[in-house]
Order: sequence, then structure tokens, then C-alpha cells
Amino acid sequence: MKKMTVLFSAAAIIGVSAVAAEALIQKAKNAGLKPIPESKTELYKLIDNPKNPITDAKVELGKKLYFDPRLSKSGLISCNTCHNLATGGVDGVDAATGHKWTANPHHLNSPTVYNAVFFEKQFWDGRSPDLEDQAQGPIQAAPEMAATPEHVEKVVNSIPEYVKAFKKAYNDPNFKPKFKDVADVIAVFERTLVTPSRYDKYLAGCDKALSKEEKEGLKIFIDKGCVSCHTGIALGGSMQPFPAVGKYKYANIGDFKGDKNGMVKTPTLRNILETRPYFHNGAVWSIEEAIKIMGETQLGVKITDKEAKKIKAFFGALTGEKPYVRYPMLPASTDKTPKPDLN
Amino acid sequence: MKKMTVLFSAAAIIGVSAVAAEALIQKAKNAGLKPIPESKTELYKLIDNPKNPITDAKVELGKKLYFDPRLSKSGLISCNTCHNLATGGVDGVDAATGHKWTANPHHLNSPTVYNAVFFEKQFWDGRSPDLEDQAQGPIQAAPEMAATPEHVEKVVNSIPEYVKAFKKAYNDPNFKPKFKDVADVIAVFERTLVTPSRYDKYLAGCDKALSKEEKEGLKIFIDKGCVSCHTGIALGGSMQPFPAVGKYKYANIGDFKGDKNGMVKTPTLRNILETRPYFHNGAVWSIEEAIKIMGETQLGVKITDKEAKKIKAFFGALTGEKPYVRYPMLPASTDKTPKPDLN
Repeated sequence: MKKMTVLFSAAAIIGVSAVAAEALIQKAKNAGLKPIPESKTELYKLIDNPKNPITDAKVELGKKLYFDPRLSKSGLISCNTCHNLATGGVDGVDAATGHKWTANPHHLNSPTVYNAVFFEKQFWDGRSPDLEDQAQGPIQAAPEMAATPEHVEKVVNSIPEYVKAFKKAYNDPNFKPKFKDVADVIAVFERTLVTPSRYDKYLAGCDKALSKEEKEGLKIFIDKGCVSCHTGIALGGSMQPFPAVGKYKYANIGDFKGDKNGMVKTPTLRNILETRPYFHNGAVWSIEEAIKIMGETQLGVKITDKEAKKIKAFFGALTGEKPYVRYPMLPASTDKTPKPDLN
Repeated sequence: MKKMTVLFSAAAIIGVSAVAAEALIQKAKNAGLKPIPESKTELYKLIDNPKNPITDAKVELGKKLYFDPRLSKSGLISCNTCHNLATGGVDGVDAATGHKWTANPHHLNSPTVYNAVFFEKQFWDGRSPDLEDQAQGPIQAAPEMAATPEHVEKVVNSIPEYVKAFKKAYNDPNFKPKFKDVADVIAVFERTLVTPSRYDKYLAGCDKALSKEEKEGLKIFIDKGCVSCHTGIALGGSMQPFPAVGKYKYANIGDFKGDKNGMVKTPTLRNILETRPYFHNGAVWSIEEAIKIMGETQLGVKITDKEAKKIKAFFGALTGEKPYVRYPMLPASTDKTPKPDLN
């Protein structure tokens, strides 16, 4: 009898716990939070671009170009310089810094490339609809890679292995890569940079994927309303009203005020513990501080230190598994390859 | 009878060819050229440092630190910035350019890290006896990574995964990594960066590893006397008299004049077709031009365009197979990690 009581009690506890677990997962889903699909087929439906389909050949070529500093005017800066795959897909400095050590003129922080495929828009002001379009920007921006489309085309066409790889990728023996094609294959590589995490396992129904503290953090995150902007698969990536920054010190850094409607792209929270400093101008280095400021400026709610700590714990579960990246060995320059220009 | 004659002739040709092949390989060896050993045991005897033995744990940790820009003052420059493993172990610009976009004050070109373990000395003026000592230099140099030893120690000790990895690598639960230890594990990683090539197969006795033109190039390379400096496993790496540059345009670039005895470290020719521009000041972009200038200034011999072309073909056989490098995912910074300082 004693044994049976124990069994019954255990069953009762499991029952309650299962209901509670189910409830929080359901609550998260109702709030618009979505996992990265475990199924590769489902995932590819989400990350693929029918106008620029993902293929192995394009991913491999795009990866090389993503890491190739010769696309820049100086020959020293690649996409990976500011969106470093080794460090959460960012550069770890407050304002993006590129050609001639020039900081972004609006003091904008480099957003992570990881999971950027899930964003509704690209760039802080959302001016770009997709990664193909976005990739053309930093290559040409004067304080970033500072290259012209002509420079990029000259570099790529001067290196026979690249031309061959484009011909293969586009199945066209006469293919002559243009600037847009370079951006397109880089975007294809970027589309594969997704980082599933314990949080996704949790949303898929695995209750024990998150610790007690992480679940408490998730609940607070939802209850406080953070999820009204940090939602969807990326927990961010959509345009939202620019923070009411008036009374905060960080408001004085940079002159960015959002797009013409005063909207700003919400950053993703995936891998957020790897991507400090925070905010569009990289003004805040502590995640707890960032959480509390956002509560106050965006939601008009107070988030206590204890609550911020739990939300931070939840953010830890958003640190995802990074794709396996073999560091590419790039094809050699030739006498036709433009010389770097550091001025 | 006819058939038999044919067979005899073939045998005779093979015989002659084999003798000729053997002769050139022997000639190369007599001239001091040596292959990278195929045997891993033999290789490790050459690349290991008894004072800082190679272990898997140190290689893996050293690789992370080699790629970690947080060791620099700015947080933007890693060892790999100037010694980029993707581009022949160099940066592809004439003068190494680092912190605040500052060029090397003597206009010195970044030498490749590949096969540097085989050099007798490190740095162009040979001031460093080994990679362990060398690795401490660029991290601290103001126009390179511009860090202090204290900065490096603070960064590494602020990141628990790094501290743990050092404890594991040195099998000491109380290990507290110092600046020297950081340089040591980076050096261990660098010791593994060797690139065996077709040329090594050839020297090991495989005649068909080189094409006819490549062999002709090798013969000219030896006969002209290039091998008097470009010798040993690295085809370079020893201290030799600084070129008599007086009458050449490139002499006017930079103020480097060699060490106090007017000696300069001969660069390796391995992967030379991937490491333009050439010479200590990166003044020459065409390898044929570099070959001809070296003949005239260092050897007092004229190398014709045709001969330079064949030597270049031989250099193609020195392009080696690069080690498989998984791009490291670096441990996240913490609130204790020093913030980058771009000034």
C-alpha cells in the first residue's frame, strides 16, 4: 500500500508538472514565440529564397566571398570582420568600424548575421527587404568595405577559381559574375547561419530543455511584455517604435532616430549573451542594464534586478549551436587582381 | 623482332629518364633543399619545441586565441588579421596595417605564418629565436594589436572557458594564464601550420610529382644560385645579406636596412604564389619581376623572362596543402572582459 501511495503521489506530481509545463509552452506560443523547426525540410522552406535558391555550390562559394577581404577597397576587411562568426556574428565594438578605422557615422552597432534570415527587414532602419539586398550595402559603404561594384567584379573575375565556381553554381559555362551575383551567393551562405538552441527544443515540447530559472525568466519575459517586440522565430527582426530614449545617457550617442516613421528594427535575442554591447548604438554593455532600460523606455514597466537576472538566465537558453564552418582557403590573386588601396 | 626492339627502346628511355630524374632530385638535395617529412613522427621531431611541447589541447586553445580579436586593444585585430590563414598566411597588403589603420613604420610586409616553424629566426631582422618569442611581439606592437600583457591577461582570465582550457592544457587546476602562456599556445598552433606540397613528394623520390616545366624551373633555380639563400625545408628562413637595392625603385620604400649586421631573414618560397606582394617592403607585385630583381641584386646574374617563367612554374609546385581549420567559435566575453579601446 505504501508503495502504491508513493506511485500515486508521483503520478500526481508528474501530472501537475506536465500541465504547468504545457501551459508555459502554450503561453509562449500564444505570445508569438516560435522555434527554429527541427525538420530540415521545414527549415529550408523558411530560409530559402525562391529568387535565389540555396544550393551547396552557392553556399560554398558564398562562404569564401564572405571571408574574402579582397572584396574591400583596402583588401583588409571582409563581411566577417564586422559580422565575425567566431564571436556571435558581431564585432564586439560599440560602433561598426571599417575602412581607414572609420566608425559608423551614426554610431550604429553591427547586428549579428546569425539568424538574420528570420528578420522581416535588414539594417537598423529596415531599408533592406532581404539578405541579398543587404549584402550589397556594407561592401560599398565608405566607412565599411568602401568598394565599388566595379572593384568587386574586377577582383572576382581576376581569380579563375572564382569564375569557375560561379559558372558551376549557376550551371552556365558563360557566366560572368556581376556585383549582384557576389551579394547573392554571400546571402545564400548567410541564409544557412541559423543557430538552434535549447529554447527551440523547449518550444518543441521538451520541458526539461530549460532549467527552472530559465523558465521563470521566460515567464517574466512574456508577462512584462518584452515579447510584444521580441517575438517570432528571431525574437526580433521586425520594425517597432524607436525607444523613448530621452532621459537615458545612451541617447546622447549617435544621431540615429529610426526610419522616416520613427521605427527601428528590433534586434534578435538569439545569442544575445554573445553579442554585447547592446542597443543600436552599442551604448550598454551589461545585459541586465539593457533589460531594465528596455522595460522602462519601451514598456513603461519596472523590471527588478532579480527579474532581470532571471530574464538573463532565459537568454542563456537562446545561445544556439553554431554551424560547422571550415575556414576557407581562398584562391590566390593573379596579376589582374586589383591591388589593395588603403586610402 | 620488331616488338622486341620497341621494348628495348622503351626500357632504354625509361632508364635514361630515371637516371635524369634521380640526378635532379640528388642535385636539389645536394643544394640543401629538403622536403617536409611525410612521416608524422619525423615531422613532429622537427616542429615540436621541447620547452613547449605540442599537445591537442594546446593546439585547440592556441587556435582560438590566434583568431581572437579581443586580445588586441581595439578588439578588432587578431593574429589572423595580418597572417590570414585563408590567404596564404598573409594580409595581401604591402605594409602590415593594424591598430588605428597604422602601417608598419618601416613599411615591413607581413610574412606568412605557414611553415614559419621551419625558419631559423623570426621577424625580418631575425630578432626572435622562435615562434613562442615572436608571438609576443605583434600583440604588443603599437601599429599592430597594440595591447599590453596586462590587457591580454585580463581578457583571458575574464572568460571562464579560456581559464578552464588553460588548466586542462597545462594539467594544473590552479593554472592562471599569463601573457607568456597565451603566446606559447598560439605558437603551438602555429607550429602545426605546415603545408606539404607536390614538391615534397618530388624530393621524396616521386619523379612525376613535378611537370617538365616545373623541373626545368627547379634546375634553373639551383643553377642560378637562388638556392644559396632559399634553401632548407622552408626554402628560406635564414639570415642573409640584405639586398643591394640601391638602383631599384623599391629601395625607396621604407627605411629597413636589415639587422645590425645588415642581414635580413630570407622569406620562404613555400606558397609564394599566394603571398604577394613581395620583398620585405611588399614593393613588388609580380613574381617574375621579383625573381629577376633577386637574380641581379643578390646573385649578380641575369634571369631572362623565359627563365623567370619557368622558375615561377616551379614555385607553383610549392603551393602546399593547408591544414584543415575549423573556424573556432570563441567563448563569450563577460562583464569582467575589458572593453575594446579603439583609440
